Amino acid sequence: MNTVSLIKKKQAGNSLTSEEVAYLVSGFARAEIPDYQMAAFLMATYFQGMSRAETVELTRAMIASGDSADLSSIAGIKVDKHSTGGVGDKVSLIVAPIAAACGVPVPMISGRGLGHTGGTLDKLESIPGFSTQMSMQEFEKQVAEIGCALIGQTDRIVPADRKMYALRDVTGTVQSIPLICGSILSKKVAEGIDALVLDVKYGHGAVYQEVDGARELAHNLVEIGEGLGLQVVALLTDMNQPLGNAIGNWLEVKECLDILKGSQSSPDLLELSLIISALMLKLGGISEDDQICRQTAEKAITDGSAFDKFVQICQQQGADVSFLNDPATYPSATAQVDFAAQQSGYLSEVNALVIGQAAVELGAGRKTKEDEIDYTAGIILHKKRGGRVEKGEPLLTICAQQKSLIDAVLPELKNAFQYVDAPLQPKPLILSMIDRNGENPWI
Amino acid sequence: MNTVSLIKKKQAGNSLTSEEVAYLVSGFARAEIPDYQMAAFLMATYFQGMSRAETVELTRAMIASGDSADLSSIAGIKVDKHSTGGVGDKVSLIVAPIAAACGVPVPMISGRGLGHTGGTLDKLESIPGFSTQMSMQEFEKQVAEIGCALIGQTDRIVPADRKMYALRDVTGTVQSIPLICGSILSKKVAEGIDALVLDVKYGHGAVYQEVDGARELAHNLVEIGEGLGLQVVALLTDMNQPLGNAIGNWLEVKECLDILKGSQSSPDLLELSLIISALMLKLGGISEDDQICRQTAEKAITDGSAFDKFVQICQQQGADVSFLNDPATYPSATAQVDFAAQQSGYLSEVNALVIGQAAVELGAGRKTKEDEIDYTAGIILHKKRGGRVEKGEPLLTICAQQKSLIDAVLPELKNAFQYVDAPLQPKPLILSMIDRNGENPWI
Repeated sequence: MNTVSLIKKKQAGNSLTSEEVAYLVSGFARAEIPDYQMAAFLMATYFQGMSRAETVELTRAMIASGDSADLSSIAGIKVDKHSTGGVGDKVSLIVAPIAAACGVPVPMISGRGLGHTGGTLDKLESIPGFSTQMSMQEFEKQVAEIGCALIGQTDRIVPADRKMYALRDVTGTVQSIPLICGSILSKKVAEGIDALVLDVKYGHGAVYQEVDGARELAHNLVEIGEGLGLQVVALLTDMNQPLGNAIGNWLEVKECLDILKGSQSSPDLLELSLIISALMLKLGGISEDDQICRQTAEKAITDGSAFDKFVQICQQQGADVSFLNDPATYPSATAQVDFAAQQSGYLSEVNALVIGQAAVELGAGRKTKEDEIDYTAGIILHKKRGGRVEKGEPLLTICAQQKSLIDAVLPELKNAFQYVDAPLQPKPLILSMIDRNGENPWI
Repeated sequence: MNTVSLIKKKQAGNSLTSEEVAYLVSGFARAEIPDYQMAAFLMATYFQGMSRAETVELTRAMIASGDSADLSSIAGIKVDKHSTGGVGDKVSLIVAPIAAACGVPVPMISGRGLGHTGGTLDKLESIPGFSTQMSMQEFEKQVAEIGCALIGQTDRIVPADRKMYALRDVTGTVQSIPLICGSILSKKVAEGIDALVLDVKYGHGAVYQEVDGARELAHNLVEIGEGLGLQVVALLTDMNQPLGNAIGNWLEVKECLDILKGSQSSPDLLELSLIISALMLKLGGISEDDQICRQTAEKAITDGSAFDKFVQICQQQGADVSFLNDPATYPSATAQVDFAAQQSGYLSEVNALVIGQAAVELGAGRKTKEDEIDYTAGIILHKKRGGRVEKGEPLLTICAQQKSLIDAVLPELKNAFQYVDAPLQPKPLILSMIDRNGENPWI
């Protein structure tokens, strides 16, 4: 096969055969096809797209570049959850222990923060001692023994994706639906799962600002996931404002611990977590009945089994769990400053992008790959969209190791908020659900 | 400036500023911008194109990557001619000495054969001793002294183009009008010319099979050339069949010598050469009158001054000119085989692509960059499109060093010819002329 002719085939808008896709992906993974040819192919794919069948083959070729978990000896339907990324999105830390506590095995491989969006691995690593690295054998063993493992990608899981993603990042080809689908689904299939709940976000803080882009991605992910033999359900959810009240790694873990202990103080986060947990339980075969699944998930919180499962997972992965039982003993950010409402009114916007970017500046995320994260840095929201505020009332508490970092983000944070005089219609947190049967509005 | 953001700007269909284009081109030429980012930019340009102004800036940035000739001390309007490439297209070897003999300085930097199309440099180098390499100073001196130099690109002339072309070749991005314009015109401006006659070819043997693509390229070349301060005239000419009767390097030089000595046996080649020469003389300020320019060019042949000029150029560039005066002393191909008409009739097709590819197989061109050319190899046409042939009559004489090479191309060469029973309408050799005032059909 000839790489240039395959680039030209895609450039002309034609579909590659499974052999051709495999040739490109495996050749690139083995460094036989140079970066510049893959870059040209990725850009041609950006413009011409890929058929569903072709994207399935792309994903298969990516999976074949590395190792896959074999969880066939574990009883039950293995279910994972994946979010396309947002600000304050700590749902994975809540739903994984809930589902596992209810008997659904959750083999979860997560990523790190990217740009203004947080990453599950960074959040977990804010718990002292928590290790997100283990071998495939250890991963399989932990899922078998305690029903859940929360790890990061290893060198051997879909190495083609790491290489392709790094190239897409520097060639302006991240935003391509078949490439996004291949990247997400290759890692999910390699985990050894049977079913997947996807949280596809739209809005200021999401990869797709507009619903239409997110919707197209969700439909593609469902169809391609199904093409790969998974059962997939996707939710289209709002990421115009941060999810929950905390942004920043340890601050978010603390919020999750509160939820798992039964707190009602982050209603949007609690609701989305229960909905996703219930979907995981349904896919996991706990019940065909939505209500029963929801109640089962709620019970895992009220009876403490989800919290206990989270502690067990953390303990298994080397964490000092004393902080989970008594978060107050965790060191606090040395500098904490309240951010006051500039005027009275109702908040018509609490911009997730602005707040997420500020959190990165404070040290909660990385500006370069080499940056170290300050786990205590971040932002606590006291008001959300639609909330009534009085001028001077604290909207945020901003946390960092240095006051100067906080001072630097204050001007930009003013742009996160918009005020109106009259009360607002609430916006739906979940717009619709998409599965193999199509899209249905969420009631 | 940030390379990824510039890639994304082009990807979104926006025009880059002159500073942005210069940043990309100079950064790439200096190897500060890696191949893979330039590959992504080139592919984005393939899909989104460039504005005229942007293409002018691209070309300027390419020129700025190296040295330019300074011919300002040479009196007169310096004129060059460029063809987009074809089979049997040896017009440069005829028009350069004609124009120089008539007093128009011709600083000509040419290229090598590419694919099935021949290259002026390879043809010149078939003359023993002919050197196509000289320094910029020697180039300027020769144009000043004898009115013409015929050289190849040096390392210092538009190095960005060499690097970009090599990358385009392996990333499927050769066929992009702004990139083609930048590549052609950067080298022409760097020669130090004031005016340019372009021969833009369409048909089986051309880069553009269809007239429309060639026409679009011609209009772009004229407008961008004018934007760069050149006076540009382009002809749209037929390359469905080879030009003239000879294909292969020394065979083509011999045909040129015949033309320069007054032979009428290649009427299409003679006509196109006279038309292009006349345009060069007109641009070169010899006369505003087309007829006078044509007659002046014809006279340079009949009075022997063009032939003498060619000999002078060859002598100056180190060639053994004895072969020019007596071509019969040049070694012949050891194997020569006639190819006979398969049937009687009128030739409705003499396919330039098929014949050009066969010539490469015979040794007249390179299949890989490292291949050595056999200067005696090639094909002589005895009949052209529209010609009446009888079955068994020789259509071609095929020349190579080994009979096996000839045998190998015979089956494919059968596909070069199509026969019809009735005489054909002649196809125009020249379709139209394009200059700053637009396009006019050629009468």
